Amino acid sequence: MKLSILFGGASFEHEISIVSAITLKEKLQTFDLTFIFCDTDHTFYKIERASMKATTFSRGEYKKMPLLRLEKGAFVQKSMFSSLEHRATVLNLIHGADGEDGTIAALLDFYHISYVGPRVAASVFSYDKRYTKWLCTAKNIKCVDYEILSADIQEDIKLDYPIIVKPARLGSSIGVSIVKDASEFDYALDTAYEYDKCVVVEPFIKGVKEYNVAGYMSEGKVHFSIVEEPQKEEFLDFEKKYMDFSRSESVLRADISKELEQKLTNTFAKIYTNMFEGALIRCDFFVVNNEVLLNEINPIPGSMANYLFEDFPHVIKELSQSLPKKNSIQVDYEYIHSISSAKGK
Amino acid sequence: MKLSILFGGASFEHEISIVSAITLKEKLQTFDLTFIFCDTDHTFYKIERASMKATTFSRGEYKKMPLLRLEKGAFVQKSMFSSLEHRATVLNLIHGADGEDGTIAALLDFYHISYVGPRVAASVFSYDKRYTKWLCTAKNIKCVDYEILSADIQEDIKLDYPIIVKPARLGSSIGVSIVKDASEFDYALDTAYEYDKCVVVEPFIKGVKEYNVAGYMSEGKVHFSIVEEPQKEEFLDFEKKYMDFSRSESVLRADISKELEQKLTNTFAKIYTNMFEGALIRCDFFVVNNEVLLNEINPIPGSMANYLFEDFPHVIKELSQSLPKKNSIQVDYEYIHSISSAKGK
Repeated sequence: MKLSILFGGASFEHEISIVSAITLKEKLQTFDLTFIFCDTDHTFYKIERASMKATTFSRGEYKKMPLLRLEKGAFVQKSMFSSLEHRATVLNLIHGADGEDGTIAALLDFYHISYVGPRVAASVFSYDKRYTKWLCTAKNIKCVDYEILSADIQEDIKLDYPIIVKPARLGSSIGVSIVKDASEFDYALDTAYEYDKCVVVEPFIKGVKEYNVAGYMSEGKVHFSIVEEPQKEEFLDFEKKYMDFSRSESVLRADISKELEQKLTNTFAKIYTNMFEGALIRCDFFVVNNEVLLNEINPIPGSMANYLFEDFPHVIKELSQSLPKKNSIQVDYEYIHSISSAKGK
Repeated sequence: MKLSILFGGASFEHEISIVSAITLKEKLQTFDLTFIFCDTDHTFYKIERASMKATTFSRGEYKKMPLLRLEKGAFVQKSMFSSLEHRATVLNLIHGADGEDGTIAALLDFYHISYVGPRVAASVFSYDKRYTKWLCTAKNIKCVDYEILSADIQEDIKLDYPIIVKPARLGSSIGVSIVKDASEFDYALDTAYEYDKCVVVEPFIKGVKEYNVAGYMSEGKVHFSIVEEPQKEEFLDFEKKYMDFSRSESVLRADISKELEQKLTNTFAKIYTNMFEGALIRCDFFVVNNEVLLNEINPIPGSMANYLFEDFPHVIKELSQSLPKKNSIQVDYEYIHSISSAKGK
């Protein structure tokens, strides 16, 4: 099967995306893969399979590779006398800004390129932690209590310490701090404001049970991965999570009751349906007093959470064959005709 | 002042956008305008000022005009031996799909072109009537009661008749019906489902007082238009609204108390702030029992609601000089370096 892996992007998670792409090169060996790199300047390059290693990017060698341009239905590689079209379905693997904020989704929609990944609205609701809370309220899904702070306004918080401070629009724990008492608060806030002028503050629930589930929809049915209980340190910092993004070994199924598993997958399906169609997402849940709370939605999880699926190539194949279609719009200029006659123009 | 008017789009409101653009040609006569037409196939054309009339589009004459291509920072017009760059700020005047659903916003963001219009998240919250309701809940703004129906599921409604049935994602009254009793319901539902598989049903409040306010932010302050009490028929159908899109004569200020005006503009500011920066939007309100309810947000109102402002050219000038800026992202490949050394690759 043909598939183009789109990675990089103008994002704080640019390097994480490269690691994800290198991991998928291994995990999707049976696919006919094309690698499309988007640099931080939004120029596209075609990277040869053999060049898909860290040094190609860290040493800037990618700059010598063929340029690609977005045209209707394809990424096009032009040379002096010919042009080569890459027409495969795209797997959007750009984490963070560009990939998860709706930009890439809109771009591919506009150029009529089919893609695996969240659509524009789904991106908006998962990328910004504020809007994920709104989604929870609307869909009647429990989540952790929160307050919103803005760099423009000085405001006190009402939550009790310890708290966790997060930039509203970043993943991968970048800019996130756990604050044990008031003395640490200002520093944590400044750190978060470096990345976003809007910050989400939540109570830090020590020792909370955490579970991750990934899934996707194919032919109208949501398919779930195994439920994982992630290894925990206080929380994963950027470097640990970074290593996490190159994960490729299968993990063990969490040792939980059938009932809890059902609760987790039901909540996942509720979040996914009528929003994330076309994407493989990972939801990170907390369980408090036997109640499932949504912590975070990863609409493009690191290395596509391949390690949570038994047969990952099959998952990607199934998903690519079940992507949402856009209606085409016909215009007959009937109203323009009538208005011109009415106005005598 | 230089300004590019972007209009057309693959939208049911394609023709309305053409009418809006022709209206702005008159209203912004003092500007150095470039007209960029996006056809339903997503090809861009440069339309000469003199050709900005209905027949250029209804007769397909635009197809002979110069093609434009999106590149970093500009729409570019290529000829055999040269290329001409159109670098002005863009006014996004594409109503409905493409323009108001976040697609054009993302496209212009991606290509680093500054624009007047809603950003991606703002588009998502105003384009889909369901998400406008979620926004109201989150911002504690009153709106009309509602139920959501989906083409996939047969469900009864709990609201009493008369009701109003609307496709979730269309403006300009397309596909909207007022339903007086149960006998008319199925037909209205089918009509709405022709445009969207998701439908919003609301109580129809006969004789409700309706007020429109437009506004924008410049230098951190929200500026309001006059408050208008729109002329009412039962409701404006597509053709009447269509004519409405070419409005250019100033309207009369609604005859309301200072207190109600304050309530309306306060609600407008609450909706606008931290969401619609960069756009000139029009909010349509209902007033029931002296309470202000949001009916609809038009993030790209017909002919930019020019008729609600005393000095419209000044408004556009001020807004263009106060557009949100995106942070640039620097990548140092430090983590890639460290991971490569850790892995010995």
